[in-house]
Amino acid sequence: LPLKEKALIRRIAAQAAGRHAALLTGIGDDCAVLRLPPRHDALITTDFSLEGVHFRRDWHPAASVGHRCLARGLSDIAAMGGRPLAALLSLALPRQVPQAWVDAFFRGFLRLARQFGVALAGGDIAQSPSGVLADIVVLGAVPTRRALRRCGARPGDFIYVTGKLGRAVAALELLRSGRKLRPRAHPAHFFPVPRLEVGRALRERRLASAAIDISDGLSTDLSHICDESGVGAVLLADKIPHPAGVPLEFALHGGDDYELLFTATPRSRVPPAIAGVPIARIGEITAAPGLWLMSSNGRRSRLNSKGWEHF
Amino acid sequence: LPLKEKALIRRIAAQAAGRHAALLTGIGDDCAVLRLPPRHDALITTDFSLEGVHFRRDWHPAASVGHRCLARGLSDIAAMGGRPLAALLSLALPRQVPQAWVDAFFRGFLRLARQFGVALAGGDIAQSPSGVLADIVVLGAVPTRRALRRCGARPGDFIYVTGKLGRAVAALELLRSGRKLRPRAHPAHFFPVPRLEVGRALRERRLASAAIDISDGLSTDLSHICDESGVGAVLLADKIPHPAGVPLEFALHGGDDYELLFTATPRSRVPPAIAGVPIARIGEITAAPGLWLMSSNGRRSRLNSKGWEHF
Repeated sequence: LPLKEKALIRRIAAQAAGRHAALLTGIGDDCAVLRLPPRHDALITTDFSLEGVHFRRDWHPAASVGHRCLARGLSDIAAMGGRPLAALLSLALPRQVPQAWVDAFFRGFLRLARQFGVALAGGDIAQSPSGVLADIVVLGAVPTRRALRRCGARPGDFIYVTGKLGRAVAALELLRSGRKLRPRAHPAHFFPVPRLEVGRALRERRLASAAIDISDGLSTDLSHICDESGVGAVLLADKIPHPAGVPLEFALHGGDDYELLFTATPRSRVPPAIAGVPIARIGEITAAPGLWLMSSNGRRSRLNSKGWEHF
Repeated sequence: LPLKEKALIRRIAAQAAGRHAALLTGIGDDCAVLRLPPRHDALITTDFSLEGVHFRRDWHPAASVGHRCLARGLSDIAAMGGRPLAALLSLALPRQVPQAWVDAFFRGFLRLARQFGVALAGGDIAQSPSGVLADIVVLGAVPTRRALRRCGARPGDFIYVTGKLGRAVAALELLRSGRKLRPRAHPAHFFPVPRLEVGRALRERRLASAAIDISDGLSTDLSHICDESGVGAVLLADKIPHPAGVPLEFALHGGDDYELLFTATPRSRVPPAIAGVPIARIGEITAAPGLWLMSSNGRRSRLNSKGWEHF
């Protein structure tokens, strides 16, 4: 295996080659060495993509698995208002995975990396006891003390969300029902684009009091903001943006949307769109803890924060 | 699962609590936020610890698994001459793992973290499709342009190694033969200590021309230095430090020793010990590529770089 690993690492290094100002030492040493811009803090995040938990090889083409793996990490950087610099990838492969699958995985991964100027700076390759196991690490930078946090929401703040919700889970439900999907027809599920420009604009214009990305589902991620900020929230059911044909339940609880959820004081002038991405005002932060959903006729009901079940 | 995850994350956060100057935002946000010291570069490394590949739950107590998981990352920081600041941990657990196992894992992990002032700054928790899956991320810092690299070895440089080799694999072979081992009697295998002080001293005193940690085995890791430096090497068989009773083969090819292997010009005054750890001169870098082993009677033989097989 070590020799096979060596060949694989060379192959990856060749595919990942390219100039990145921040990257001093990349693949081929004990650590990656990176230079952060002056007066910036480091952001780091790590997320699993496990076969059978986060993806299925019979549902997701390899390029989609690679893309989504990196998107998970980039989305966390977006939620902090940061700029991604480099990614490291730990990848464990079962013996029987064909080289073509691995190549397509890296094609999807590196296409997204190039789109946002992210270097693949290192990682780990291992043999997997069962299924493809990936863990993404992304290092980013944010001007000192300017990172968007989960803990800054205050009573009276408005709640906003980017884009439309529920599409990723809508595609997942189709897959579950046995449908074959053309990945390019369901980009929100197979090739989600992390909202890096929006996160950066929120930070630069100091618009957001708190922010998070919607990876576990709106209700769960809103509960994270509320828990960390010591507040509650009311959502307006008819303001939650979801495409025609996607049920409200999907928009409320579906995960993997990789949109941004943020709060802002009523004085903040939040525009209707940032970087071409629509922004919707969907509710308000309350002093009393708990999540509520208000229907168009004014009736309130408890909003349970339940993440969508994985596969 | 989300609720169980939340409870587990709270539990981990409580155990990991403590003040760390570099850590601005830890567990409980989308990213960890860290402040690097001025005029330092960032070091990042990531390494899998997979059940059945890197450890076995019937052989390794949970505290040892947690300790070794972090030691793998810290050892990479040591090899670059860096100082570790923070660790992130991705941990996937099968449903049937008892809470006591998880607690003991974190006891072992956090004991080593405290020993070297490393903050547990975040990570990911998931359900595992099969076995305990861990991926460690360590962020470190090193003064700008001073990181120890693999690529600096030059013909005529001497080759050095810290400590004694082969003990980790010697214990592994006993486990394989069905023996039960008391972990505290085999610390090199169950609780290896990364050579952070040695790495730092090598960098501060500018002693090393190249460095790597011995995780894959001396012969394999030496081949990494030679490949990256475009050189070859001759090792002196009777200079390889290994305890009485541990065969030379184990010292040459056994992995998981977490000692440092480094090269230095003949002019460098490499002391016989650094921070209480003995340093042995074991060979010389050659212009001609290839690895050779010279026995005490002067006979040369090819040294194949073969890593020890995993479990």
